[in-house]
Amino acid sequence: MNKIKAAIVGYGNIGHFVLDALQEAPDFEIAGVVRRNADNRPAELADYPVVTDIKQLGKVDVAILCTPTREVEKHASVMLADGINTVDSFDIHTDICALRNRLDSIAKAHGTVAVIAAGWDPGSDSVVRTLMQAAAPRGVTYTNFGPGMSMGHTVCVKSKPGVKNALSMTIPLGTGIHRRMVYVELEDGYTLESVAKAVKEDPYFASDETHVIEVPSVDEVKDMGHGVHMTRKGVSGKTQNQRFDFNMSINNPALTAQILVGVARASMKQQPGAYTMIEIPVIDFLPGDRDTLIRHLV
Amino acid sequence: MNKIKAAIVGYGNIGHFVLDALQEAPDFEIAGVVRRNADNRPAELADYPVVTDIKQLGKVDVAILCTPTREVEKHASVMLADGINTVDSFDIHTDICALRNRLDSIAKAHGTVAVIAAGWDPGSDSVVRTLMQAAAPRGVTYTNFGPGMSMGHTVCVKSKPGVKNALSMTIPLGTGIHRRMVYVELEDGYTLESVAKAVKEDPYFASDETHVIEVPSVDEVKDMGHGVHMTRKGVSGKTQNQRFDFNMSINNPALTAQILVGVARASMKQQPGAYTMIEIPVIDFLPGDRDTLIRHLV
Repeated sequence: MNKIKAAIVGYGNIGHFVLDALQEAPDFEIAGVVRRNADNRPAELADYPVVTDIKQLGKVDVAILCTPTREVEKHASVMLADGINTVDSFDIHTDICALRNRLDSIAKAHGTVAVIAAGWDPGSDSVVRTLMQAAAPRGVTYTNFGPGMSMGHTVCVKSKPGVKNALSMTIPLGTGIHRRMVYVELEDGYTLESVAKAVKEDPYFASDETHVIEVPSVDEVKDMGHGVHMTRKGVSGKTQNQRFDFNMSINNPALTAQILVGVARASMKQQPGAYTMIEIPVIDFLPGDRDTLIRHLV
Repeated sequence: MNKIKAAIVGYGNIGHFVLDALQEAPDFEIAGVVRRNADNRPAELADYPVVTDIKQLGKVDVAILCTPTREVEKHASVMLADGINTVDSFDIHTDICALRNRLDSIAKAHGTVAVIAAGWDPGSDSVVRTLMQAAAPRGVTYTNFGPGMSMGHTVCVKSKPGVKNALSMTIPLGTGIHRRMVYVELEDGYTLESVAKAVKEDPYFASDETHVIEVPSVDEVKDMGHGVHMTRKGVSGKTQNQRFDFNMSINNPALTAQILVGVARASMKQQPGAYTMIEIPVIDFLPGDRDTLIRHLV
């Protein structure tokens, strides 16, 4: 069997877990890791090339982009034009459709495939939301996040004057309403009161119930567990009160990484273009023989 | 917009709910109903042609097969060869893959599309099972059915001597283990003891905890609600204890019918061949503009 040659682009938290997932996948070969400083090479990368430019890796089938979300388009545009499929977990919901359409043109022009917004939300949750809507076309789906750390909210708190370190936890209150529990370490000369005010006035927090709590060490209260609870109550045909819910409790970067590896695999089976996960048959996320998968899963 | 012309083939319980779902769908036109006795025309069919042969309906894009499962292949084979897409909720799990491959040849030879095994299980549950496996490739998924009526088990009980009417309810006990609660009306001259023995010895029931209870009227204890609870605990990459679960509580034929209408729509967008639901992008189950769907659901 020809293994899929994958490069990991960016080696932060997600990149590290993508390495794990690729090592466990039966159908992948790790071409190498692309990062800004190729001399930064932790022990687990000893067996792999670490480079600053993906072209130094020779033939690569698919690049798994583990960079910050705002750098995804820059990397994807170049790599797609160079004949390399790309997958990412771009997570700015309002820009997903536009990014898809921009990358779609590039991918089609160069015979490559991009899979974008492929994490858990956006990502696997999007597939469940779509399926729930197909099952009961009228109705409301609520996506309740947490309990877990919100990266975006945490970055926002860290940017406030007087904050040495921070953690913003998202707590689901149901029907898509969330509480924000913010844990901060303060710099000398700042009061909790002034920091809490700055946080609560920020647009990131202004519309949610927000509690700001001072702790001696943010690192001691941080964990990477997260969760989601999606519910839909709707109408199938003319029949009311059809109820669906989906829950998960997961290590956040580990799940994102596993999904990225699944869509990297799926990218090899799609026609040129850019896709979100709801545009790809779920069977393509899995390795193995099609008939066997159908026998086990359908 | 050109509406999709759909025929309902078979007009029992499912066919009736498919009529509901088609009437509510914005992108379908009901070509008519095909049934053995075209004179059997309840009030809700007054506005539609009721015929014994689908050829009497003129142009049909897709036939929604609502016949007993064992008649699916016969109808699908003929219609696919006649240039009509077919969809069904064929539910004999062990024969799905083989049926798919047989219909695939016919569909490809005639430029048509079949979507098979499209109900809730097999069907939408299969999509969730596949997605859960992609999210955590190692681990076990348990599918727990009920509480709800099992059609297959009910038919089995009705076939026993002395049974006038019956209902077999499936009760989920977790980890894929089920209890069978069987309600029977007895014919004169038969004892509950002898009927219970015959039921419990049947291969349909022999391996499950089974209780047989006599009731004065089966119709008074019957409802069409059903449910499922699927759970997976598995490993993403090298990270253990990733937990997922999916629940639903639904009117059984209404959901099956809604799923059938979704796959009928999707059949119009696939390349010729036969498909199970896990082989089709979930976005294709929904009506409407692709960009709008991506914006709302991803």
